[in-house]
This record gives sequence, C-alpha cells and structure tokens, in this order.
Amino acid sequence: MSKSFEDKKYAPIGVFDSGVGGLTVAREIMRQLPQESIIYFGDTARVPYGSKSKETIVRYSRQIIHFLESKGVKAIVVACNTASAFALEEIRPEMRMPIIGVVKPGAKVAAESTVNGRIGVIGTEGTVGSQIYTEMIHRHNPNAVVLGKACPLFVPLVEEGWLKDPVTIEVAKRYLATFQESEIDTLILGCTHYPLLRSTIREIMGDEVNLVNPAYETAQGLKCLLEQNQLANDSKEQKTFATYRFFVSDAAEKFKNFASSILPCEIKEARLIHIEE
Amino acid sequence: MSKSFEDKKYAPIGVFDSGVGGLTVAREIMRQLPQESIIYFGDTARVPYGSKSKETIVRYSRQIIHFLESKGVKAIVVACNTASAFALEEIRPEMRMPIIGVVKPGAKVAAESTVNGRIGVIGTEGTVGSQIYTEMIHRHNPNAVVLGKACPLFVPLVEEGWLKDPVTIEVAKRYLATFQESEIDTLILGCTHYPLLRSTIREIMGDEVNLVNPAYETAQGLKCLLEQNQLANDSKEQKTFATYRFFVSDAAEKFKNFASSILPCEIKEARLIHIEE
Repeated sequence: MSKSFEDKKYAPIGVFDSGVGGLTVAREIMRQLPQESIIYFGDTARVPYGSKSKETIVRYSRQIIHFLESKGVKAIVVACNTASAFALEEIRPEMRMPIIGVVKPGAKVAAESTVNGRIGVIGTEGTVGSQIYTEMIHRHNPNAVVLGKACPLFVPLVEEGWLKDPVTIEVAKRYLATFQESEIDTLILGCTHYPLLRSTIREIMGDEVNLVNPAYETAQGLKCLLEQNQLANDSKEQKTFATYRFFVSDAAEKFKNFASSILPCEIKEARLIHIEE
Repeated sequence: MSKSFEDKKYAPIGVFDSGVGGLTVAREIMRQLPQESIIYFGDTARVPYGSKSKETIVRYSRQIIHFLESKGVKAIVVACNTASAFALEEIRPEMRMPIIGVVKPGAKVAAESTVNGRIGVIGTEGTVGSQIYTEMIHRHNPNAVVLGKACPLFVPLVEEGWLKDPVTIEVAKRYLATFQESEIDTLILGCTHYPLLRSTIREIMGDEVNLVNPAYETAQGLKCLLEQNQLANDSKEQKTFATYRFFVSDAAEKFKNFASSILPCEIKEARLIHIEE
C-alpha cells in the first residue's frame, strides 16, 4: 500500500449545510466515527436553501464541494436535505471521491421499518416539492404510500430558540394535522433542523409513530462507504486525535456560539471565507 | 439643456431589496410618482438579509448597485431596511447618482411626529442591532427615547401567508409586549414586510400609537431628491408610459406571482440573473 494511499485514510471528511442545521449530522458522525476528522462548511451568507430553486442550490453546492476538495477531504457528506434533494445526483458524476447525502439513508430505513406502508415526510418547500423521498422510498418499498408536508416555519422557530414554546406547538399541530388523519406509522424528519423539535413532534404524533432522523442513518452509511473505499481511519496506532474545523460564509462568531451549544465540544474558531469567489 | 441631460429624466429608478419585501416600497413609488419608470431587483438567491453581517450586506448591495447602474438608472432606492442600515452610508461616497434608503425618511417622520418622545422600532436582527434608527431619530430629536425589538419570525409568517392568523397574533403579542409597557406613542415598521402585518400590529398596539411605514416617506423623499437633482420626469408631452421591469437572482416565477398579488399591476416577466458574477 503506497504512502499516499495510507495518508488519504487520515484525511478529514467534508460536511456541508446551508447553515447550522447540518451540525446535527456532524454531531452524529462525531459520535459514531470518533476517529474521523471533519471539515464543516455552513453557507450562512446564503442560508436558507429550502425556499430556493434547484438551479441555485446546484450552483451553491458545486462551489462548496470545490472548496472542500481544496481542503483535501477524502469524502463528502451533504448534510442538508434540500441540497441532497436537488444537487446530489446532479453532481455525483463529476466527483472523484465518495459523496453521500441525508435523503437516501433516511428513505431506506423508513421504507424498511414501516409496518402499514404509510410514511410521512416533513421538510422544506424544496425537499418536499422535489418528491425525492417518495422516489427513494419506492426503490426499497414500491407499494409504500408517501405523504409530504413542507413546514417552512420550523427553521425560523428553531433559530428563534422557541423549541418547546406554545407557539411552536400550535404551528406543529397545524402542519402535522394532515398526518394524524392519514394514519402514518413512520415520519421522516427531512430537514436537519427538525431533530431539535423532536420532543414537540413526538408529543403531537404520539408514541406509536416512528420518528426517523436521517442523521443517524447517514453516519451509518458514511461508515460503510469509507470501508468500501478503504478510506476508513482504522489505524489504532495513529498518535493524533480527530480534529474538527469549521468554515462559514458569514457571521462566524454567531455560528461558533450556536455550534458550541449543540456539539459535544467547544469550538475554538469558525473561519470566514467568500464562497462565491 | 443638452439632449443627454433631458434623456436622463426619462431613465428609470433602480429599486432593490433582499426579496419581495421592497415591493411595498415600489408600490408606494408607483402611486406617488406614477410617471417614473422602475427597475426592481430582488435578491431571492440570498434572501434574507436581516440575519446576516454588515460586511456581507455591503458586498451584496454593491453588486446589486453595479447591476442597476449597468441598466442605466438615474437614481437608486435601497428598499430594504437592513441594507439601508448597513450599506447606504458605506456606499454613498462611491456613487455618482442620487441614492436614498428607507431608514432616514422613516426616522425623520417618527422624530417629528412623536408627542411624548417615546418611539419604538421593529425590524430584523440586523436593522435593530445596528441602532441606525436611534441615530437617525436623534439627529432630528436628540431627546427622544428609542426602543428597538427584533422580530425575526415576522418575515417567515408573512411569507407563509399567515397575515391575520392566531399564531401570528400570538407571536406579535410576544414581540410587542415590551412596547406596551414602555408607553411609546410612535412605532416604526422597520422592515418592508411588516406593512403587510399592519392590521395585526394595529390591533395589539391600539389606535393611540402612530404606526410609521417608511415606504410612504421614502417615496416622498425620492420625489424631493429627483427634483433637487433635476431628474424628475416632469414632461407632460412624453408619449410613453412608465414601465416597470423586474429582475431576481432566483425563483423568478414565484417572485412574479407574489409581485402580481401585491402590486396594482400584473407583472409579465421577472428575469433571472446571476448577481454574484
């Protein structure tokens, strides 16, 4: 095995999102793959992605992937449902390294775990409108009935910090009413912000409905992908610990504080870059 | 008077905003200056501006102003409170044509019309955090007490279309509580989306509080500015009518539909451009 090939195993994973939401995915990778280093990019200058067009999201994603490649990552995780929905299949053929999104892993586990074949998906306007979850679920379970509902107020409510607020509960009741009537047994949290509303959603949907957080499955999928490509950092002898670096396109200080509050570790720095250049 | 100088009077006004909110300002210009043509730009690929940093908003505004200049406008209206707060004074020295924002006109009328000297300002995080309204109000009324409150959920609620919804009323009550205790007699609607929530805000604040919509004063200010610079289209002989053209950086069709719903005229086209290039 050549030196350069061995070196590649120690390269970081590139993870990106429109902003802070993808940190829930990064957190899961840190937990499940503690030996892997991460370079995270949050596109805080152009957040949110959920209300924007496919063409724009593909362009933004391409710019970010080029940036992550320039940092020497060995694989890329698209930790944003909208970018996974719009950009992943478009960009994959151009890639020389493994890339994984959050949609396919979430869809797979929902398709396999539903008992009555009725699955709900909540997400941004872009993700739900793309019908990507329906398509991916049908690859594993062609007879599943998939019901989507865009929940555009969830992200601003999370960012306002009103996680268990009466207003958030009322908004969630309104958005989720459609699922209560249609007797789903599985609900995909199809936006990386939504796991932060898990307990509110759980309260409304009841204990019988299985809530799928694609972050967990994505970290699992990443693990397989690294192993298949002989890229997993499996060395027990390596002296260095995993390192986590953060880049954003705007408001680095605000990002740093938010990230420190939801990650298991304190973040020392989030570095600002101009991604469009 | 030279031909080119006369021609300039018939050039359009450039109006820009982060998205659709500035259409409330464009609407007011159409009403008060019906002979003036308008070129509107909505930065829908990077909306919203309210949660982003000064540096980023200055960069975005500069790009947009260059675009509007390339379209031959005779004056520019920054129809966005956040861009007015962060970018206007920074960019003004670079400009060869008149430019006006929404903050100064709104601040002036509030400063002059308050009786008890207590003024409230609601806006985005960026606008309120910048303290620009306080500074501008103090130029006209140094003793005024100015109280600001960021209302980050108002824009997404407007964009969800929940204008008079119980959820919106509850959120507004929460945000406005601070003003009810502090006995303001004037409240500035310091974000171009907020006039669409006027009746909800009116209901909570009561009839005694004067609600200032800077769009009205901005159109007045623009009128003076054009006259001072001999740029007003005052020709009664001109055969052509005012024309309105719209450009966006994303999701042109969605913009067109929204704009048609709030402007007095049906919009035929919103053209997509890549503003960052």
